[in-house]
Amino acid sequence: MKVAIQGERGAFSHQAALQLVRGADVLACATSVQVFDALDSRRAAAAVIPVENTLAGPVGEHLDLLLERDVFIHAEMRLRIAHNLIAAPGVKLKDIRQVLSHPVALDQCRNFFRKHHFRKNRGVAAVPFYDTAGSVKHIMAQGLRDTAGIASSQAAKEYDGKVLMSGLEDNKQNFTRFFLIDKKKKVAARANKTSLVFSLKNVSGALFKALSVFALRDLDLSKIESRPVRGKPWEYRFYVDVLCGEEPAMKLALKHLEEIAGFVKVLGVYPGAK
Amino acid sequence: MKVAIQGERGAFSHQAALQLVRGADVLACATSVQVFDALDSRRAAAAVIPVENTLAGPVGEHLDLLLERDVFIHAEMRLRIAHNLIAAPGVKLKDIRQVLSHPVALDQCRNFFRKHHFRKNRGVAAVPFYDTAGSVKHIMAQGLRDTAGIASSQAAKEYDGKVLMSGLEDNKQNFTRFFLIDKKKKVAARANKTSLVFSLKNVSGALFKALSVFALRDLDLSKIESRPVRGKPWEYRFYVDVLCGEEPAMKLALKHLEEIAGFVKVLGVYPGAK
Repeated sequence: MKVAIQGERGAFSHQAALQLVRGADVLACATSVQVFDALDSRRAAAAVIPVENTLAGPVGEHLDLLLERDVFIHAEMRLRIAHNLIAAPGVKLKDIRQVLSHPVALDQCRNFFRKHHFRKNRGVAAVPFYDTAGSVKHIMAQGLRDTAGIASSQAAKEYDGKVLMSGLEDNKQNFTRFFLIDKKKKVAARANKTSLVFSLKNVSGALFKALSVFALRDLDLSKIESRPVRGKPWEYRFYVDVLCGEEPAMKLALKHLEEIAGFVKVLGVYPGAK
Repeated sequence: MKVAIQGERGAFSHQAALQLVRGADVLACATSVQVFDALDSRRAAAAVIPVENTLAGPVGEHLDLLLERDVFIHAEMRLRIAHNLIAAPGVKLKDIRQVLSHPVALDQCRNFFRKHHFRKNRGVAAVPFYDTAGSVKHIMAQGLRDTAGIASSQAAKEYDGKVLMSGLEDNKQNFTRFFLIDKKKKVAARANKTSLVFSLKNVSGALFKALSVFALRDLDLSKIESRPVRGKPWEYRFYVDVLCGEEPAMKLALKHLEEIAGFVKVLGVYPGAK
């Protein structure tokens, strides 16, 4: 099955896609908009997108696209983000003068840059690059022998690089949550989680009233996120995840929410990640 | 008064600082952590930081630092983000082959790149740079005559560049909200807004109960934002802005919130922006 991801082959989204879809054939897209376009044009049957990271927070652009585009969430997964130092085969740790990666990844490996002075009395330079896996692709394509990249172990496999060190990340509690999405509005039998987005009417206590539709029915939220409404400064939409599938209480809660909210869209009903 | 900002002189934060503090003497810091360090070391008496943008959403790093560091919000302001094309004096529009700026700014000027072909039948290249104002600084320092930057009008003043075009932004509803912060816990007489952050105990309907302390007292929220708790995956803290100063109802609401929340910190009580 063709699965679109944002980023190069070997990106963390590629790892997530392989775990979510057995034997996934990954379609690498430069931008997030292109990922959603690939679903519309049927170039991909599904897509895997990151929606939040436990250190960096939400991926706002993907929340916005889930709202705007006609797609549905079918599954979620949580991937532990493990950073690896990857170089060309034969290159030794002591040869490395600079390390390329995405700025967010470099920032998550600060202790590594503080502690490791590969060359006597000299630090190794952290150089911002457009993509984690892309840094490994670049190093291998250019045949660089004094440069390493920081990326997923999948990136080493993809471009025949060698992992020189692993576990470079400062904080091991680094997870990214991914959604598997496609164009079909199908709900799995064991679905027990609902993601939805709503906007509020401009009345006093509006958010409190909106949340009451879940609280009054003992439906738990695992997450709430606000996003600005483009073109309407200081107005927000709310993304919530409810720990409930298509049970009657959830259907009643959604009906009730429609009375209170200006707008409601169900983004998906799916089995929650363990 | 010495006011710390993140970014180069001429950044949008510099414009905001001049509006928030008359005659502000800006201290440009490379990172946000350095801005907060400058307050601790008394190198700056105050700081001006962006906290949200009406298109891009919250500035998570600044929300995290407001929680971690011992600072207090004294004022807020909303700055209209207007992008300008800036080049060295004497350089003409038709000379421009490439345009440097921060990737977020380039992304906010897509129509400009689509519509403007300065050289016959050739587009102009958008080149990502580390900072908006920094792009103008670089162009002037290097004496580049085929390159322009996209930045605030303040950046043109700062580096003696010339504004070739203004209003480059696609969406005019582009505002950034800034806070003026310092180390003193002082509340202005006309303060009518409170920003606070709280965490929840892991009980059913916890957020609903927390919001009830405001709703039951008819205290309106203008904003709620969730942020991940570092080191505790899938747990969140909530940042709320309440449209109330130090009135008795607010004091009672805070006492009530302490019963329900695991943790509460008031980030500031200040006059809300008009």
